[in-house]
Amino acid sequence: MPAPTYAPTVVIENFYPCLEGGRYPVKRIVGEVLEVWVDVFKDGHDVMSAVLKHRKEGTRRWVETGLEQVDGDRWHGCCQFESAGRWEYAVEAWGDVFRSWKKTFAVRVESKDPDAGIEAREGARLLLEAAQRAKGAGAEDAAMQLRDCAELLGTLPPEQLLEVLLSAELQALMDRFPDRSQSTTSVVMKAQVERERARFSAWYEFFPRNAEGRADKHSTFRDCVVRLDDAKAMGFDVIYFPPIHPIGVAHRKGKNNTLVAQPDDVGSPWAIGGPTGGHLAIEPALGTEADFVWLLGQAKERGMEIALDFALNCSPDHPYVKSHPDWFYQRPDGSIRYAENPPKKYQDIYPLNFHCADWKNLWKELIEVVLYWVGRGVKIFRVDNPHTKPVAFWEELIGTVQRQDPDVLFLAEAFTKPKMMQVLGKIGFSQSYTYFTWRETKEELTAYATELTQGEMRWYYRGNFWPNTPDILPGHLQNAGPAVFRLRAALAATLSSTWGMYSGYEFCENEPYPGKEEYNWSEKYELKNRDWDAPGNIKPFIALLNQVRKENAALHLYDNLVFHQADHSEVMCYSRVTPDLSNRLLFVVSLNTSHPVETMVHVNLGALGLVEGQRYAVTDLLHGSRYTWAGSSNFVGLRPDGVALHVFRVENV
Amino acid sequence: MPAPTYAPTVVIENFYPCLEGGRYPVKRIVGEVLEVWVDVFKDGHDVMSAVLKHRKEGTRRWVETGLEQVDGDRWHGCCQFESAGRWEYAVEAWGDVFRSWKKTFAVRVESKDPDAGIEAREGARLLLEAAQRAKGAGAEDAAMQLRDCAELLGTLPPEQLLEVLLSAELQALMDRFPDRSQSTTSVVMKAQVERERARFSAWYEFFPRNAEGRADKHSTFRDCVVRLDDAKAMGFDVIYFPPIHPIGVAHRKGKNNTLVAQPDDVGSPWAIGGPTGGHLAIEPALGTEADFVWLLGQAKERGMEIALDFALNCSPDHPYVKSHPDWFYQRPDGSIRYAENPPKKYQDIYPLNFHCADWKNLWKELIEVVLYWVGRGVKIFRVDNPHTKPVAFWEELIGTVQRQDPDVLFLAEAFTKPKMMQVLGKIGFSQSYTYFTWRETKEELTAYATELTQGEMRWYYRGNFWPNTPDILPGHLQNAGPAVFRLRAALAATLSSTWGMYSGYEFCENEPYPGKEEYNWSEKYELKNRDWDAPGNIKPFIALLNQVRKENAALHLYDNLVFHQADHSEVMCYSRVTPDLSNRLLFVVSLNTSHPVETMVHVNLGALGLVEGQRYAVTDLLHGSRYTWAGSSNFVGLRPDGVALHVFRVENV
Repeated sequence: MPAPTYAPTVVIENFYPCLEGGRYPVKRIVGEVLEVWVDVFKDGHDVMSAVLKHRKEGTRRWVETGLEQVDGDRWHGCCQFESAGRWEYAVEAWGDVFRSWKKTFAVRVESKDPDAGIEAREGARLLLEAAQRAKGAGAEDAAMQLRDCAELLGTLPPEQLLEVLLSAELQALMDRFPDRSQSTTSVVMKAQVERERARFSAWYEFFPRNAEGRADKHSTFRDCVVRLDDAKAMGFDVIYFPPIHPIGVAHRKGKNNTLVAQPDDVGSPWAIGGPTGGHLAIEPALGTEADFVWLLGQAKERGMEIALDFALNCSPDHPYVKSHPDWFYQRPDGSIRYAENPPKKYQDIYPLNFHCADWKNLWKELIEVVLYWVGRGVKIFRVDNPHTKPVAFWEELIGTVQRQDPDVLFLAEAFTKPKMMQVLGKIGFSQSYTYFTWRETKEELTAYATELTQGEMRWYYRGNFWPNTPDILPGHLQNAGPAVFRLRAALAATLSSTWGMYSGYEFCENEPYPGKEEYNWSEKYELKNRDWDAPGNIKPFIALLNQVRKENAALHLYDNLVFHQADHSEVMCYSRVTPDLSNRLLFVVSLNTSHPVETMVHVNLGALGLVEGQRYAVTDLLHGSRYTWAGSSNFVGLRPDGVALHVFRVENV
Repeated sequence: MPAPTYAPTVVIENFYPCLEGGRYPVKRIVGEVLEVWVDVFKDGHDVMSAVLKHRKEGTRRWVETGLEQVDGDRWHGCCQFESAGRWEYAVEAWGDVFRSWKKTFAVRVESKDPDAGIEAREGARLLLEAAQRAKGAGAEDAAMQLRDCAELLGTLPPEQLLEVLLSAELQALMDRFPDRSQSTTSVVMKAQVERERARFSAWYEFFPRNAEGRADKHSTFRDCVVRLDDAKAMGFDVIYFPPIHPIGVAHRKGKNNTLVAQPDDVGSPWAIGGPTGGHLAIEPALGTEADFVWLLGQAKERGMEIALDFALNCSPDHPYVKSHPDWFYQRPDGSIRYAENPPKKYQDIYPLNFHCADWKNLWKELIEVVLYWVGRGVKIFRVDNPHTKPVAFWEELIGTVQRQDPDVLFLAEAFTKPKMMQVLGKIGFSQSYTYFTWRETKEELTAYATELTQGEMRWYYRGNFWPNTPDILPGHLQNAGPAVFRLRAALAATLSSTWGMYSGYEFCENEPYPGKEEYNWSEKYELKNRDWDAPGNIKPFIALLNQVRKENAALHLYDNLVFHQADHSEVMCYSRVTPDLSNRLLFVVSLNTSHPVETMVHVNLGALGLVEGQRYAVTDLLHGSRYTWAGSSNFVGLRPDGVALHVFRVENV
């Protein structure tokens, strides 16, 4: 900002929320309220006025909303962003000359100050100046009223003036045309505003090539509709596909990640690039780009959308290897370096060198890849391993893409150390995978969900909870029965507003690769026979979970999680409530999947909008049972083969 | 900073300390250690290297010190600033290519990777590149060693190379010439570095016109030497004078702040400006500028210095009123507005309008006033009511003055709301007055001293503790006896490294203006008879306090205060220890000034560098008594008419 031409005077600082001094934007959803707290004060004894103002990045006109002094020099205000995109907000404050004068003048009159008459002329001047500033609809009327009032100030004796001066009408008039000639504006803060799906979504991942669940036949996009319908019936709204691009042939991995592929092995979709193209092409066995675009339309018709995997892995057959060998790392013998994490070797993948001399063109090309698929209609990308590429690259990519199409969302698949996962959220990923998969006990789940949704992270990190992925079959699911699968799905779907699962989960696929946290005979490397409706499947339960999520606004929010006391060490009790209390849910979940549990739960009545002594009804949205409770302490019994959790809707009676 | 020409890669953020995102400098003393914590990490699996670097503002060359990874991605380092002035510091970090290669290579050798031979050539390349970077003393030798080692890498079989590669000597050589071509530098942080007196000082305030304590005679600067000697004997090192400028005649205040002065009334020194001049002149009754400069020399000879009051009050007789009437506020009748806080009126003072059209020249003129007195040899200013002038003005004034003479210090006399007091510290005041004067109970004193010295404020706010000022005779001192005066002096002198008192305190002047927290017949408005050695004076006690302060390095530090448990609600126990444990003080103070108290105290042994079960000696530096203690719990008895507090030196036995 240019230096002001008047003496700067107001101090505006200590914003909350504030990420790294304003370096990073806070995240909001279109229409969601942003609450801002900030210190505002100035020298001397003037009454202060301040506004919160916001505008879309690149526009000039600020929209102003009120800011109220709440405690000492702390002010509070709210604003909402009306469309997706990058926004700015700031606080502007000034000494309120008229309010200050009025306050002083009232004291003069009360203390019978002989100078009150002279000082009334000062007030008259302020009114006349406001009249001169009057602009816009009704300005002429307003100016006339102000001038009339100024005349009164010049004629009435001071003690008769107070009633006029202290009227709410006059103050409202003056507030329409304040003297802001010496106002101060704070540093400009940033907001990243996204559509609601960035916060509320249910993901279903499947391999389109295996859509029919046949080991003997490579499915195509055209074969995927049945899967879409099944996912829709289960209540999912985002279908996520592993990479759909041509798969490399050189060093292709065989079944179970073996080093040598058989001629009929299909290879890992993450080894991108073959004779028919790279990241802009479609694996021919899946169909054509037209088929893919057709499938996007099919999803849309069903109220769903398809997310693509953005995996910056190149197989040795990727076109870039020939056209841009300088984009890769060279080994001392002149060959191109394949991925390694010694002693592990990944000969089927060449990592890109983000720091090569031609890095600017490389970055540009990769951003173009995303924009290409955005052009085809893809609005969500799941980004593979972002933590192994420069953070600055993702900031540029997401910024560039969202400035062109603010509806595009990005999910970060970074399973790494906390600070890297956090910074990827800060620089713009709409959602992020989490450690949920490895949080098992009541203590672990409570602490982690609290950290994500109640601490500073809630301003920039939206945790997407997955009980499994093609890469991860966690210990507790290995060889486990439906009760465990139901439990982990229920936790994911109710602790976060956004969750997802990898197909196979619904029929409790549970065979581990020996000694690993991975699937045996993983779909990553082969076509498999799968019975989507296998006996013992939990599809109705998942459908019910997603239906409850859809029908209850409290589950569309991310940061409204409150934990309540359950005496039993294996029972969790938590609630999700809308700010207006119109939707109040209380969850009681048993983590014991082998034995019944009984416990007292002690709910925080205030968090549910209830008062001590009040009777209230709790209706289980999963099982239909209804109880009338009174007070905070109530008895609950849960059993793994029956009602293993309650999702209570709370209502006054 | 210009955008780098290579791909940015390292994330450096979350500095601690960090004031408003780096907007404000942290304060340090010349030679004092600044500890810095910061998050440093990058994409991928590279080993990281990072340095902390600092330089004087306006210079180019950075001085580098080490930065060590302490926990996850958190790094820690230290630096010291070698001279007073404004400094900058930053963190630079990069992926350490050689360390990363070495780590990987070791795994290759262990896992008998057939590619190890080829990869050894990569290491050789790194060594040869380092040899090319070698510069400075001994560079040729180093380069030769590196080239020799590179040759080994090309010839020896991999398994024989490890010993060479893992040697500390080779790593040290490589660390001399690291590849920082793709390093990232953080935002630049700021430090305000001042001489030690900014942190450690004992102030004594007296009115030079009353130096002889005679109601019948206006003292001069030449008469002040006896007061200097007395202050020196009491151990003070800063003598602070109320304004020494000509005092206005128009509307001069009479004795006890009455509205009409008698012909012989001397007026308030804060009503600055008369026929003989304004802020650049000396009140003729005090002497000449030459007399004042002579007195500065006298103070210097005694190891003391004189602080001036910088009070931006103009009497109606101030030269500015004629030369720059536009620098003041006009009333509606065209007259100049005097100070008011209705219903109070201060007709003897015209406030300056810091927001007048000519504000730039006004601000410049006032800065010139300070520089004028700096030119005469004044290096400390006590600033009157800074909170009624723009914060930005003080930031400009202090910055401008300290950039010309970094030895100049400023004390903020702002008794107002917390955030304003804090921001005045943030923008540069070296020291600030505090609420100490109104903190009386154990709980109040403990909480406040902890807030000041242990919380974020310790980075920018140095609280100067005053038991009284010419404006403030707090309730607990009104008509109180020596025990109370001793207590409050002892608390001020031991809870903070910087304290001060207004003369009269030493002989327990205690008569209040009826119903007010002020002195009756205040020296602000008249010459008074005063007996500096009146019976019952506490001068020897004050001298002893200041002597203990001088002789004990732990009392020279500000942020080393630790509170310990004392069971009695009126006994405080706290310690001050130097980081190297060479000086350890333990204070036990009774707040009861009328009755004896007995209590157990339970010291935190770790804070004193002691271990459980260890015997240690405590020697009372005020009273000479010596005890041998063991363990944390010990008995203490204190009595107001005897040993009312212990200042123990703690020593191992």
